[in-house]
Amino acid sequence: MTDNHKIQALCAGRPVAIVGAGLVGAGWAIVFARAGLNVTMFDANPEITRQAVPLIEGQLAGLQRHGLIDEDPATVLARITPVATLAEAVEGVAYVQESVLERVEVKRQLMVDLDALASPDMVVGSSTSGIPGSAFALGLSISPRVLIAHPVNPPYLVPVVELVPSPETAPGTVSFADALMRAVGQTVVHVRKEVEGFVLNRLQAVLLREAWALAQEGVASCEDIDKTIRDGLGWRWSFMGPFETIDLNAPGGVADYAVRLGPLYQRIADSRGHETPWDPALIRDVEAQRREHLPQSDLEARRAWRDEHLMAFAANRRARDPQA
Amino acid sequence: MTDNHKIQALCAGRPVAIVGAGLVGAGWAIVFARAGLNVTMFDANPEITRQAVPLIEGQLAGLQRHGLIDEDPATVLARITPVATLAEAVEGVAYVQESVLERVEVKRQLMVDLDALASPDMVVGSSTSGIPGSAFALGLSISPRVLIAHPVNPPYLVPVVELVPSPETAPGTVSFADALMRAVGQTVVHVRKEVEGFVLNRLQAVLLREAWALAQEGVASCEDIDKTIRDGLGWRWSFMGPFETIDLNAPGGVADYAVRLGPLYQRIADSRGHETPWDPALIRDVEAQRREHLPQSDLEARRAWRDEHLMAFAANRRARDPQA
Repeated sequence: MTDNHKIQALCAGRPVAIVGAGLVGAGWAIVFARAGLNVTMFDANPEITRQAVPLIEGQLAGLQRHGLIDEDPATVLARITPVATLAEAVEGVAYVQESVLERVEVKRQLMVDLDALASPDMVVGSSTSGIPGSAFALGLSISPRVLIAHPVNPPYLVPVVELVPSPETAPGTVSFADALMRAVGQTVVHVRKEVEGFVLNRLQAVLLREAWALAQEGVASCEDIDKTIRDGLGWRWSFMGPFETIDLNAPGGVADYAVRLGPLYQRIADSRGHETPWDPALIRDVEAQRREHLPQSDLEARRAWRDEHLMAFAANRRARDPQA
Repeated sequence: MTDNHKIQALCAGRPVAIVGAGLVGAGWAIVFARAGLNVTMFDANPEITRQAVPLIEGQLAGLQRHGLIDEDPATVLARITPVATLAEAVEGVAYVQESVLERVEVKRQLMVDLDALASPDMVVGSSTSGIPGSAFALGLSISPRVLIAHPVNPPYLVPVVELVPSPETAPGTVSFADALMRAVGQTVVHVRKEVEGFVLNRLQAVLLREAWALAQEGVASCEDIDKTIRDGLGWRWSFMGPFETIDLNAPGGVADYAVRLGPLYQRIADSRGHETPWDPALIRDVEAQRREHLPQSDLEARRAWRDEHLMAFAANRRARDPQA
């Protein structure tokens, strides 16, 4: 899954830094430490850094149980060093993964601070899911070495990462991040334009939007809409993307499919106006349907169920498809 | 997975009929025969009925290899009887699953023929993925006993089935089909209105449409768009629907999520106009990208890979979640 020699060569034996040690940052720490890199971990709130350590321990134990790490959890954990200041965190590192609060002024201040501290070749990846680099990473000496590296949660299980350069990001920054991410076991998606939601959240958004609109119109219950994905469409999508799916679904491949089914999809598109379905009444209705299905008090237990399922899924994918 | 006593009671010991024995019809024959029902199989083209038998044999062998049938393939196959006429096919059956050509006049003629042949309580489910019952199943004595039962291919692996009544379908027909489908191991989605594409294809359509539009705008390559699903979003969607996914993704559940992320999704929706992306130039471009990735001559082998993956996935899901 990962190649330690390659990783060490890429980073010239230097550590990487995690800045922002919440759920996302802690997840990234596991990705890098599991791959053999030394990791410094910093959060402006020391309490969050403290909480991250047992969180990581618990996740590593789960990974071991599912055969998803080859080393002892303690060995992996020992590579992660919580530190008290940003300066200590980034001292001599090859790469910084920032996962601080999703607010543009917080991200901007961090870039200014990193600009003052960075070594001349340090690269910075931002975990933001929605703020383009143009909004917080321009006009600094470090700007050519900053890009978005947007993960899915948790990144040590779900491998995809979207790399999105700003107009000032240097091509070499993109190729370094691409090589590093692949080397630590992630799957890289190159987003070539700073569109709202990048690629992954745009795809999620259109599906969610249609799901909410169908619930609003009473076409099906939320639970039944969920079934069409989890007992239907989601099966193929767990190992094939939408283009490959339709490429295999017509005798002559994707162009054949587009000619055969394009008109149906156009009619479906035409039948949906530009609604704004997420209104308060609908939100209350969907909430009520979900709570009937899963009481509020069971949410936490169901999240643990989800995480177990994801680990089992990852183990199964890895067994069938070692490069995944 | 299935309960033979319940199934036999539901059908009062009578067989079911498959009308239209192409890929979809043959798939349905496996669903019913695997559940212990006797099945008659008819196609207006006798050559297609003949081809269906070895096709079913091959699929049953695959199901056995993956531990997805409990009986010997020959035992299951022996329950399926190809017949030469529609009258023989529907004689004394409790249920007819029609999977004839996806053309409204062909479906209408079949309904007229079934109307003349049907016993007074025979129920008819149509596999159509796009034609509402209103377009071909109204105004006959049999109309109250006809509904859409739209599967995903192949139905013996992917369990979801959409039940869509026409305005003339009797409530008892829906409850019979619901009970029968669950009893043979399918997951039932009740579609309450005859909307274009029902639920499943509407959800697929919006995602495909956005994928094509992103390819058209050069935001990402087709292969990278595929990765965001198969190495990202598709992992959760293989065991949770979109509502459950977001219900678990905010501390307070789905309403909390809607308030937090509704505005982002609204911005994403607003940023997409009403394009018609499936134009010939784009189709050529996507086709070229796919063929670079997978040559035309490898399509068939890749379909076999997909089917193996789906079987392995089904076996894994069944092991983790026996009622699925």
